[in-house]
Amino acid sequence: MDNKKRVYTFGNGQAEGKAEMKNLLGGKGANLAEMNLIGVPVPPGFTITTDVCTEYFDLGKDKVVELLKPEVEKAIAGVETLMNSKFGDIENPLLVSVRSGARASMPGMMDTILNLGLNDKVVEGLTKKTGNPRFVWDSYRRFVQMYGDVVLGMKPVNKNDIDPFEEIIENVKEEKGVHLDTELSVEDLKELVTKFKAAVKKQTGHDFPESAYEQLWGAICSVFDSWMNDRAILYRKMEGIPAEWGTAVNVQAMVFGNMGETSATGVCFSRDAATGEDLFVGEYLINAQGEDVVAGIRTPQQITKIGSQRWAQLAGISEAERVAKYPSMEEAMPAIYTELDALQTKLENHYRDMQDMEFTVQEGKLWFLQTRNGKRTGFAMVKIAMDMLRQGMISEKEAVLRVDPNKLDELLHPVFDKKALKDARVITKGLAASPGAASGKVVFNADDATVWHAKGERVIMVRIETSPEDLAGMAAAEGILTARGGMTSHAAVVARGMGKCCVSGAGALVIDYAKKTLSVDGLTLKEGDFISLNGSTGEIYLGAVATKEAELDADFSELMKLADKYTRLVVRTNADTPHDAQVARNFGAVGIGLCRTEHMFFEGEKIRAMREMILAETADDRRKALAKILPYQQADFKGIFKAMAGCPVTVRLLDPPLHEFVPHEEKEQRELAEIMGVKFETVRQRVEALHEANPMLGHRGCRLGNTYPEITEMQTRAILGAALELKKEGVETHPEIMVPLTGILYEFSNQEEVIRKTAAELFKEKGDSIDFKVGTMIEIPRAALTANRIASKAEFFSFGTNDLTQMTFGYSRDDIASFLPAYLDMKILKNDPFQVLDQNGVGQLVQMATEKGRSVRPDLKCGICGEHGGEPSSVEFCHRVGLNYVSCSPFRVPIARLAAAQAALKDAK
Amino acid sequence: MDNKKRVYTFGNGQAEGKAEMKNLLGGKGANLAEMNLIGVPVPPGFTITTDVCTEYFDLGKDKVVELLKPEVEKAIAGVETLMNSKFGDIENPLLVSVRSGARASMPGMMDTILNLGLNDKVVEGLTKKTGNPRFVWDSYRRFVQMYGDVVLGMKPVNKNDIDPFEEIIENVKEEKGVHLDTELSVEDLKELVTKFKAAVKKQTGHDFPESAYEQLWGAICSVFDSWMNDRAILYRKMEGIPAEWGTAVNVQAMVFGNMGETSATGVCFSRDAATGEDLFVGEYLINAQGEDVVAGIRTPQQITKIGSQRWAQLAGISEAERVAKYPSMEEAMPAIYTELDALQTKLENHYRDMQDMEFTVQEGKLWFLQTRNGKRTGFAMVKIAMDMLRQGMISEKEAVLRVDPNKLDELLHPVFDKKALKDARVITKGLAASPGAASGKVVFNADDATVWHAKGERVIMVRIETSPEDLAGMAAAEGILTARGGMTSHAAVVARGMGKCCVSGAGALVIDYAKKTLSVDGLTLKEGDFISLNGSTGEIYLGAVATKEAELDADFSELMKLADKYTRLVVRTNADTPHDAQVARNFGAVGIGLCRTEHMFFEGEKIRAMREMILAETADDRRKALAKILPYQQADFKGIFKAMAGCPVTVRLLDPPLHEFVPHEEKEQRELAEIMGVKFETVRQRVEALHEANPMLGHRGCRLGNTYPEITEMQTRAILGAALELKKEGVETHPEIMVPLTGILYEFSNQEEVIRKTAAELFKEKGDSIDFKVGTMIEIPRAALTANRIASKAEFFSFGTNDLTQMTFGYSRDDIASFLPAYLDMKILKNDPFQVLDQNGVGQLVQMATEKGRSVRPDLKCGICGEHGGEPSSVEFCHRVGLNYVSCSPFRVPIARLAAAQAALKDAK
Repeated sequence: MDNKKRVYTFGNGQAEGKAEMKNLLGGKGANLAEMNLIGVPVPPGFTITTDVCTEYFDLGKDKVVELLKPEVEKAIAGVETLMNSKFGDIENPLLVSVRSGARASMPGMMDTILNLGLNDKVVEGLTKKTGNPRFVWDSYRRFVQMYGDVVLGMKPVNKNDIDPFEEIIENVKEEKGVHLDTELSVEDLKELVTKFKAAVKKQTGHDFPESAYEQLWGAICSVFDSWMNDRAILYRKMEGIPAEWGTAVNVQAMVFGNMGETSATGVCFSRDAATGEDLFVGEYLINAQGEDVVAGIRTPQQITKIGSQRWAQLAGISEAERVAKYPSMEEAMPAIYTELDALQTKLENHYRDMQDMEFTVQEGKLWFLQTRNGKRTGFAMVKIAMDMLRQGMISEKEAVLRVDPNKLDELLHPVFDKKALKDARVITKGLAASPGAASGKVVFNADDATVWHAKGERVIMVRIETSPEDLAGMAAAEGILTARGGMTSHAAVVARGMGKCCVSGAGALVIDYAKKTLSVDGLTLKEGDFISLNGSTGEIYLGAVATKEAELDADFSELMKLADKYTRLVVRTNADTPHDAQVARNFGAVGIGLCRTEHMFFEGEKIRAMREMILAETADDRRKALAKILPYQQADFKGIFKAMAGCPVTVRLLDPPLHEFVPHEEKEQRELAEIMGVKFETVRQRVEALHEANPMLGHRGCRLGNTYPEITEMQTRAILGAALELKKEGVETHPEIMVPLTGILYEFSNQEEVIRKTAAELFKEKGDSIDFKVGTMIEIPRAALTANRIASKAEFFSFGTNDLTQMTFGYSRDDIASFLPAYLDMKILKNDPFQVLDQNGVGQLVQMATEKGRSVRPDLKCGICGEHGGEPSSVEFCHRVGLNYVSCSPFRVPIARLAAAQAALKDAK
Repeated sequence: MDNKKRVYTFGNGQAEGKAEMKNLLGGKGANLAEMNLIGVPVPPGFTITTDVCTEYFDLGKDKVVELLKPEVEKAIAGVETLMNSKFGDIENPLLVSVRSGARASMPGMMDTILNLGLNDKVVEGLTKKTGNPRFVWDSYRRFVQMYGDVVLGMKPVNKNDIDPFEEIIENVKEEKGVHLDTELSVEDLKELVTKFKAAVKKQTGHDFPESAYEQLWGAICSVFDSWMNDRAILYRKMEGIPAEWGTAVNVQAMVFGNMGETSATGVCFSRDAATGEDLFVGEYLINAQGEDVVAGIRTPQQITKIGSQRWAQLAGISEAERVAKYPSMEEAMPAIYTELDALQTKLENHYRDMQDMEFTVQEGKLWFLQTRNGKRTGFAMVKIAMDMLRQGMISEKEAVLRVDPNKLDELLHPVFDKKALKDARVITKGLAASPGAASGKVVFNADDATVWHAKGERVIMVRIETSPEDLAGMAAAEGILTARGGMTSHAAVVARGMGKCCVSGAGALVIDYAKKTLSVDGLTLKEGDFISLNGSTGEIYLGAVATKEAELDADFSELMKLADKYTRLVVRTNADTPHDAQVARNFGAVGIGLCRTEHMFFEGEKIRAMREMILAETADDRRKALAKILPYQQADFKGIFKAMAGCPVTVRLLDPPLHEFVPHEEKEQRELAEIMGVKFETVRQRVEALHEANPMLGHRGCRLGNTYPEITEMQTRAILGAALELKKEGVETHPEIMVPLTGILYEFSNQEEVIRKTAAELFKEKGDSIDFKVGTMIEIPRAALTANRIASKAEFFSFGTNDLTQMTFGYSRDDIASFLPAYLDMKILKNDPFQVLDQNGVGQLVQMATEKGRSVRPDLKCGICGEHGGEPSSVEFCHRVGLNYVSCSPFRVPIARLAAAQAALKDAK
């Protein structure tokens, strides 16, 4: 026997551990000790250290039990004294819970075992004590079932068999002709226990342990064993948690809120989790168990009087009836209430955050079972953080760190009216592609959307999938719904850019363009029928569900100001129109990181000229066609530059493959042939020649600019021409021309030469000039690998992490739906890599390229303009690897600003 | 003036430089010095050092001319003495040539300027001396034109204009009513010179220089200037040649073979460049210029008597006529011949390689103008290397290094009979996708190919592009011709694997499947018409051109043995059938690096079962369908393992997306529905659901295995089942199971678990076991980036550089044809990255993955199985980064073996 301390006790305001001892006691154990130390009554107990877990695997079970025995027995004795009961005693039994508790929270480890210490005799004593045989026998039944499953390994023999205990329960229920567990009588429960034990004997060859200590050692060892189960190992691998950390074991006295009228149980929050109001709120039930509060069998009562009165008013209950039937705890148990209120304040002050607490009153004595930082809505998150800052509870930096950037989404988009939502029928679900709520009449194409919208109708545009030709329709619609495509499909990306609600990839939908109908599960909707979309959940509702606009309040503005105070990373936006640029600027964007120019080739006259260009046979004819587009495009750039006056604007040269610009249906091809005065066959053949097996990997990006330099010339003229005009008007511009899809130095440098040469010509013609930069997207793995070469010519890098993710993984965004859900289920992937930047792979390339680029050009400006630019963990990564900015959709700008500030603050720590 | 030596003279068996001074004198200058030193008469001259080039750009033109002047004038005086003539003299003029000459050969630099020193007066003197005014004036005309172009910058004013000198020539020819330059009279040539000079005056504002020294300094400075021209800069960038190296300038006396009957000119080889025979061969002409020998106006005569006799015999010329009209040099100029023969032997012995020489006899004096290692056929290359080894001229290692591995191709495939080829008409050209020659009747689909072949017909299968369904047809055909697809299209890859001739991407072909016709340039062929393909050149011939089989001789076998003696890298093969495995084994492959299993799902019964699997709704139904395929697949593996008995065989699990296995036409879908007893609509919908926007990036590789583990189970059973059966038969097998398309550790480890579990079950069932390895393809960039993680589980890596190139560049092999030719033209790419491994980008990933992988598993076996495994420079790269093996198509195995040996030898240097 050595002198090492393996067990740390707590109880009655004393504790051998403390919050700082998380590594030794695990998170839960340290917290239980801490609560004791600050005077919060928690049921007494003890923690077996994480070190013992390591010993367990080194020395083996028997040796560790031998080493632990004296300390555990002593600790149990201490609990017995405090609880005035005895472990294994028939008259006055002490029951305990056994829980695992590692340093970091570890889902996938052992479940809690409750009511340990029960056996055939103790159960009789407890029945006498509580006078509630049903509760006692149900507790016993649950204990045997859980212990059997977790400790004794009562799993199905064959993988596809039903759980052995569940099978027994089903058989008994069938026999008794009942449907619900709650319909089982005490006798039935007794029968279940008997049958459970027989099953244990049959399968394991051993009797179910009657001895409390035998039960306890079984449970303790089982917690240690669970550290090495498959789920835990997989989880540790995914999270990079070392096996040496081990888990602690927490053994704690059970308390009961159902021991009569002086007993109760409840849950409470130190502030309102929905609104953030600084009000103590909660619910309780007298003579009840914790699960009764949430189960909805009895109506829980409010804890505070004011809360109770508000509740009654909403429920239409008179004050007299309320006081008689649903008194608040403040009124029904005033002494306990006073203690509870004081303690909740103490806990909030101690943890300096809104607390979500569980408590039980056993025979007039208040016990806290748990406290944790409370979950809350985005609105509450902002309000609580700013309130606590004003109340001097937390610092500015803490306030910034308190708000989950993702939750800001709620504040930025329209939402459904909660009442209206209650009666709404969900017809199917898709991907939550772009947040917000929208309702409108179903239309099936862009033209209808535009026309209906012009007539004052609210429409939802429904497509199998969208293409750039649908842009005008998407702009006119309240929301977009597609049957195909993932989180980064065309529809999703464009909708997020527009801040427009979108549900994508709703695979159950059958869309018939010809009939203009939409069917799902036997329900068929036609053009003009109302539907509603929740872009934050992916739910699709039948009919028009009322929505309301988001309101940005003072707290939000204050928070954003604080964020900017502590940030290093600059936030730009992805915007293709003056309107989007203005929206983003209002949200605090300080530049455009990605201005796509595709749509500038689409509308009206432009698409015709673009098609002429595509069908032209010589560079000169192409130049003539492009000259028609130039003035439109220059006007577009002028509007965008104006909206972003004084800020840098990165314009990406034409990127999509040419086949996106030509008609694919014979009728349209014939029309085009007529307009252009060429043979239909010529048009058809050209369109066919543009077809590609894998368009994502095809003739696009700077492969276009290099083979048709006249496109680059025209776009350069439009960009710099717009800047020159604005210079005359006294508007400051900082154009940055971006070459897309560079993979090879010379691809970039050839384009750069075309741009510089065209600029020189233009400046000479106009007798004026303007500063501009020429840089490139880094979105091809090879570009990242050879970034030192490319940076010798490029003045900035913008990581196009959408395409970089496609190439690095070899995934097509449009096709990933066939295996991504399975991959997420199987934990092959933790996240959709198109939503959350894959730091190990794609991120490695981003970091490598930044380092290699700066090795030859130390002042190389690096940013990210993929969808990841607005995703908090990705923003943090961008900060860490030293990017200069992130660029995201306008509606994600505040999220990125906050995430960037948090990254800077975490980094400083 | 400083004391630095800037000019190195050579001539008359003396030289200030030597071969080792290549850095200072450039390659050409060092070689000219060396030839002097070993007693080979070359026209005297001097070399201005590469250092002067650097001075030129540092100090400027005037300063450098000043510094050079004394040495250059002294050197010219030396040449004058040796040539007994005077620079700029009217009576007895010395003419010189001026050439650039850098350390490394640099195409894209200045052309040679000949006949420098001519002017209006010298031309008269030279006419008197030669008695050949036409020659002299033509030389003068050429000199003015070249000097004007290169030194005086007489380029077209506008980019698309015709060259100013060519314009004058065209005008004069039109005026005179002649078509050929040779039809111009002396007077016409004089008129040209006058007009050229007037044009120079008009465009440059200066007279054409008459002074010989002014001409010389202009030419020297122009050589230096050319070091910084765009083409040279681009070339240096591509080749990584530093600008500081500079170029030397070589000035050398002109000699003339057309100064009468004691003058002559010729070219000769120290051995036969076609057959490799150790025979001195060559051609000459008396009283002629070098260009007359090649121009074909006069019939060149043989140098040796024996050569002359052989020639006459072939040409059907009698000995009498030969001696009278076409005497050999040996007969006509016996003294000169003796000197020439002695010198050619001396040169071959000195350079220890077959020499290709140019010489001129000026008035009875023999001058060598050039000697270089001679180009030769693959057959000659092998024979000369092995002969020289036996003759003790070179070592074994040198013999191995002497043969260009790519040239071995000639020895391995059937070739066209040369005589038959002379009359054959080329109808169009495609890509030389798989070498060899083939002729046969045109058929348009796999079924016809199979049926016709079975009837004993030789067929060429013509397709727009091929798919796995065409495999049987390809196997039955003599050759394959496609209208679409590049060097790594399905047709090309499969054909190379089969060692079958293939021409791909012949874009001019219009193929009509319905009519079974093939049109090109107005010519239409129908089914059954004969065509012939040259897979080594891409040429397509009308009709049946006779072919002959390759013969592998003793020299070849000896060379291969030598290669294996010095190699480190092992060569495996990519083979999917016992036949291919056997062919490769005969060529020296010591294992299979890639056995694809796709075709094992295609033929006959198997494809039906495969389709059942694809249409099945549950894993159980899929298992049932797969069970039908199992015995066939096991038999396939057995055959392959047997052919490779004792060697490792890497089997890749199913890789292509499922849509490749389902019928895409309604008729076939209806048939399938009937066979399977399901609704047509069900089949149609399933096929539609399998459609992918970018199949290359879709649901394939281990994404299939992970979502349908039952496929992996079946294949594991088939592979290991085959190995177990062979074990019983006493055949040794080393199966290696390869998971394709891994991008994430867990993708691999999940598959590995399925494989190991299935193996354990099988071994238990059979009561026997066998050693096997489980590893993965590295073909996704992310796999390379996270190779340290993947190697924690994988026992071997096989780099699939085809897909790795696709993802790293973001290229689709099927679509690259739309911009690759332009990229190669523009020098954006040096090579097609699907043919030659891109070492900077893709290679960086290969190296990184190898290093990362071995950091956690030092004995990790790494190999390459992409198309690059048989490409010599790529093989060298694989050796350098430490791979264990390369794997290539059977017919490239000898090439890879030789390349591997060369890599090892170069590495050892």
